[in-house]
Amino acid sequence: MIPFSATLDFRSGYLTPHEAALERRLSEMLGAYADAEAARRLIGDAGDPVIYRAFDAPVPEERGHLVYRTTIISPGRVGAEYFMTKGHHHELDSAEFYLGMAGTGLMVMQDRAGVLQVEKLTPDVTVYVPPGWAHRTVNIGDDNLVFLAVYPGDARHDYASIERDGFTARVLATDDGPEVVMAE
Amino acid sequence: MIPFSATLDFRSGYLTPHEAALERRLSEMLGAYADAEAARRLIGDAGDPVIYRAFDAPVPEERGHLVYRTTIISPGRVGAEYFMTKGHHHELDSAEFYLGMAGTGLMVMQDRAGVLQVEKLTPDVTVYVPPGWAHRTVNIGDDNLVFLAVYPGDARHDYASIERDGFTARVLATDDGPEVVMAE
Repeated sequence: MIPFSATLDFRSGYLTPHEAALERRLSEMLGAYADAEAARRLIGDAGDPVIYRAFDAPVPEERGHLVYRTTIISPGRVGAEYFMTKGHHHELDSAEFYLGMAGTGLMVMQDRAGVLQVEKLTPDVTVYVPPGWAHRTVNIGDDNLVFLAVYPGDARHDYASIERDGFTARVLATDDGPEVVMAE
Repeated sequence: MIPFSATLDFRSGYLTPHEAALERRLSEMLGAYADAEAARRLIGDAGDPVIYRAFDAPVPEERGHLVYRTTIISPGRVGAEYFMTKGHHHELDSAEFYLGMAGTGLMVMQDRAGVLQVEKLTPDVTVYVPPGWAHRTVNIGDDNLVFLAVYPGDARHDYASIERDGFTARVLATDDGPEVVMAE
């Protein structure tokens, strides 16, 4: 494999060139949100909105490589809960590096014992997710939340354990702004 | 280890917080430049200039982790050759992710067979160094060259093979601007 360069558009999140572009709609992550009724309503009335999109760099998912992608989370809510990513562990416990590019977000992270840590993700801020921490990114702003993520090629996403156990905390919109509340 | 956030200053290259700050002076990398006489003159007349500085994130150099650092290469020349990093292989062949933050640079890369690849490093441009490619960053502009690098915690820098064999190409200032020339 030959070295290559790619351009990041910090505002839009476009990565040029990219290998694959992912689009995640609400219907594909129903279980992630607490308010199932609000979710069904949104899918009916708003035509199953795109919650987030991602652009993958052309890097193989193999040991020794560093996969990187940009992600754009739309602004919005499902009931009181902000639009967010599904969230995942890595099968092979390994770190992930985040860089905020545009918008305002929170990263909700928890280790395998359920210990919770929340960090703000804003432009020019890096968030370091150590090995063994599940992570989910939540758009708490009124605009797109755009960020870059870098992770080892052999990390492999483990969505299943989060789908099964959930996160210990949710981020809800309140009259006083976003609030992190412990999940029931 | 607990997740943490850190702020990048794209203009200055400061990483806050950081664990270690490195300063590399010309006298520590004499062998890297072709014009030894010009180097000795600079050390005498310019008081051994700082060629580059780096700020390391507080991440352990261990498998599973992703080490990241910002680097600031001063503008300047040793004879006709631009200020640059020493350049290195990784002991454990592994990739490195670069993001240009300020200034104008070139990344000179070569694989273990000596195949050469040069990419421009400018703000918002990522350069992907695949496993097995030695890499050196060269400041071809009039201002600081600032960039971010991310690499696996167990990559380990191998400076020795570059010090022994050198790069197959040098970047020289000419009347027509920077030129990549094959080393003798």
